[in-house]
Amino acid sequence: MAKEVTQRSENYSQWYNDLVVKADLAEQSPVRGCMVIKPYGYAIWEKMQRALDDMFKETGAVNAYFPLFIPKSFFSREAEHVAGFAKECAVVTHHRLMNDPGGKGVVVDPEARLEEELIVRPTSETIIWSTYKNWIKSWRDLPIMCNQWANVVRWEMRTRLFLRTAEFLWQEGHTAHATAQEAIEEAQRMVQVYARFAREYMALPVIVGHKSPNERFAGALDTLTIEGMMQDGKALQAGTSHFLGQNFAKSFDVQYTDKEGQMQYVWATSWGVSTRLMGALVMAHGDDNGLVLPPKLAPIQVVMVPIFKSDEERARILDKMDEQKKALEAEGHSVKIDDRDNLRPGFKFAEWELKGVPVRLAMGPRDLDSGTVEVHRRDTLEKRTVALDGLDKSIASLLDDIQSNIYKKAFDFRAANVEKCDDWAEFQEKIGTGKFLLCHWDGTPETEQAIKDATKATIRCIPVDSFVCEEEGRDIFSGKPSSRRVVFAISY
Amino acid sequence: MAKEVTQRSENYSQWYNDLVVKADLAEQSPVRGCMVIKPYGYAIWEKMQRALDDMFKETGAVNAYFPLFIPKSFFSREAEHVAGFAKECAVVTHHRLMNDPGGKGVVVDPEARLEEELIVRPTSETIIWSTYKNWIKSWRDLPIMCNQWANVVRWEMRTRLFLRTAEFLWQEGHTAHATAQEAIEEAQRMVQVYARFAREYMALPVIVGHKSPNERFAGALDTLTIEGMMQDGKALQAGTSHFLGQNFAKSFDVQYTDKEGQMQYVWATSWGVSTRLMGALVMAHGDDNGLVLPPKLAPIQVVMVPIFKSDEERARILDKMDEQKKALEAEGHSVKIDDRDNLRPGFKFAEWELKGVPVRLAMGPRDLDSGTVEVHRRDTLEKRTVALDGLDKSIASLLDDIQSNIYKKAFDFRAANVEKCDDWAEFQEKIGTGKFLLCHWDGTPETEQAIKDATKATIRCIPVDSFVCEEEGRDIFSGKPSSRRVVFAISY
Repeated sequence: MAKEVTQRSENYSQWYNDLVVKADLAEQSPVRGCMVIKPYGYAIWEKMQRALDDMFKETGAVNAYFPLFIPKSFFSREAEHVAGFAKECAVVTHHRLMNDPGGKGVVVDPEARLEEELIVRPTSETIIWSTYKNWIKSWRDLPIMCNQWANVVRWEMRTRLFLRTAEFLWQEGHTAHATAQEAIEEAQRMVQVYARFAREYMALPVIVGHKSPNERFAGALDTLTIEGMMQDGKALQAGTSHFLGQNFAKSFDVQYTDKEGQMQYVWATSWGVSTRLMGALVMAHGDDNGLVLPPKLAPIQVVMVPIFKSDEERARILDKMDEQKKALEAEGHSVKIDDRDNLRPGFKFAEWELKGVPVRLAMGPRDLDSGTVEVHRRDTLEKRTVALDGLDKSIASLLDDIQSNIYKKAFDFRAANVEKCDDWAEFQEKIGTGKFLLCHWDGTPETEQAIKDATKATIRCIPVDSFVCEEEGRDIFSGKPSSRRVVFAISY
Repeated sequence: MAKEVTQRSENYSQWYNDLVVKADLAEQSPVRGCMVIKPYGYAIWEKMQRALDDMFKETGAVNAYFPLFIPKSFFSREAEHVAGFAKECAVVTHHRLMNDPGGKGVVVDPEARLEEELIVRPTSETIIWSTYKNWIKSWRDLPIMCNQWANVVRWEMRTRLFLRTAEFLWQEGHTAHATAQEAIEEAQRMVQVYARFAREYMALPVIVGHKSPNERFAGALDTLTIEGMMQDGKALQAGTSHFLGQNFAKSFDVQYTDKEGQMQYVWATSWGVSTRLMGALVMAHGDDNGLVLPPKLAPIQVVMVPIFKSDEERARILDKMDEQKKALEAEGHSVKIDDRDNLRPGFKFAEWELKGVPVRLAMGPRDLDSGTVEVHRRDTLEKRTVALDGLDKSIASLLDDIQSNIYKKAFDFRAANVEKCDDWAEFQEKIGTGKFLLCHWDGTPETEQAIKDATKATIRCIPVDSFVCEEEGRDIFSGKPSSRRVVFAISY
């Protein structure tokens, strides 16, 4: 066997960490709360980036880059935003080190204190809106739709690889519009882009909905979210899109002259997903053997393992594999031949299972004679013997099938674990067992808080476009009238 | 006319800044020394990234991501590296803000002081080698070739957009090898990748050579560089590749077991290019009308400007343009139709010249009747009338021609401004007039320093593979014997 992985049933949290570390996705760094994203993990992130970036550009967004640092005073400009963000962050106070007069390495030069402290961006609304002020004069300058791929820092006391780290990578889109309606549509468009990405690339079904006021982004009038169900039944918020109203425009005095010559404040949105998606990918599909990667995001889609006894067999098999690799690559698949000579096939099988490679081909001398290959699919762990003739076509169709099957499995799992609940005792009993509960809510923050205090469950979202939720009823806790159900769950 | 640009002959430095700002590449931010890279500038950077990233991956490098922060103590580990880098940098000392007890916004929470200060990475050798220690056990783990695309911060007192900024974007490759020879070859391979990128994409001829010991990277045994000539005859260092020997391996105790079972220290390289390349691109090719972008890096390769009097003419011309745009896009060109209705054609012409778009097509009613279009090329400012029939082919060939011509122009300009010099009086006279002087040097840091003190000129590099430089002679300053010429110039 390759590296041992903790079983899900034994310790889900340790299982997650094992997969991330042992499949070489990421590891803790010597810097508290900051991770190293290893090449195999980063290759998945690059595929996510490429797909998302293309989708953003299709909507008309362009990329730009804004400073890492934000002057401290900017955080005092948007009152609600401060309250939400200005707390735990990395503060730069000095700009020089010097040799320790005592001779022990380097120390901070006390003379080099900054006049105003700089904050390492936890998010960039403030610096971007202070910039947009110079870019926007007339209605002709609108809309502006900029995205940036960047690192951000939020000091976190308890961190978990990908799910919650002090530094993480993300994209943040920031758009400026002439009207509220346009901004609201943009926020809706982008949350749907995220939902489509989750579905089509991550093979992850998500619920799209509004956050309750308690859970909104600091400074937003509305926060839209995509919520996925992990295999322990907990919810993971995988992306958000905010309608910011005119809050930032007013704080940074961003006005434009409309067609009638009147000055108007600009309307804003922001939207982002982060390396947290990597955590969602691991937790949604992995099994006790390791990662299960959807083919569209797998850095290696097909791995080939030669099985041989003699050098002569090895050479013949590798020749044939090379030929097949070229044919598969010509079809756009990424293929690796594992020709390491110091490891047994069984060890290699386990290692590539751990790494979640969708398809494994094993070929021995008898396969060579019969013109066949053993095909193993990671999602179902099924094996079958396939003809080498036309392999490119059968692999293409198999990869499609794996992509759909992983989605279907996640979809069915969620379907089996979402239920309506109208009884408070039942709610308390079920909420900790890995269910999404669709319940009536009276719309007040007080009730939401009381439910959270009693059960740790939060309103993950108020779903958009869900006829299942649209019905009259009474709040699960307060008994007050409600016009639609919302999604309650324990979350990451 | 569109925005006015300072003429090169009048004030070269202001001309540069005008191009960067008025062509919408970048602007100063409210944070001292940090720039905002605007969408048009960032689109060029993205094209550079994509081309470089593909070239890196062809050599076997993979991408990864390491933390933004480096513990202060790491800077005391590699003695020479400290001396070179640990001085001007951003130091994080606290991790929390709090509401000002006096009620005026936010202040740094004095309780939230970090036990050890964190430095925002000025470069990542130390954090990466502390990580490689865990990745490398045996010769089978080598080589490791990781690259990261990241932001870095070096506190600078005097900044210039793209050329020298406190925060900049770059890539840094860090490789680990079993032998010195392999590491030396890697450093050489990567500087040649940079040279090829400069030549083929940026249309910029560069001199590849070794830095003199004075100008080496802190901690390197050898630094290879590519040096380009700007239009004022000054040199710009556009990329470097370092052979680091075993310095970092020894500082971070990175050893591997070789095939004979012996412990050996690992050999290292690092190599990087940054957004400084954007500055080189502007300064190498721009003219008094604005940017001149090589087609391979131009976000928009072809812009179409309709010329009309009536709405009916406008509609007919835009229809035809749409058709041509689709045909050109099918050939892989990026095309924009400038259909803004509030600007005259002359204004649009000037604006797209300022932005350096390689080809402009103008079409009026008469063109429509005769099945022609006016084609204007940015590099030579020449216009001619071309048949619409087969336009996709003629544009493809024109873009190739422009790419070659921009390179040739830069190449000829450099050729006319590089000369051998063997007389100290002549050197002093010529070095400030925009020349690269090929001179004999006795190989001592003292002579190099004396020449710098007298003239501000530095040794840009000791060229590799240049038969022109390989000859016996006497040092231009000291008169001592020398076995080859080196390149002296005033630099950015």
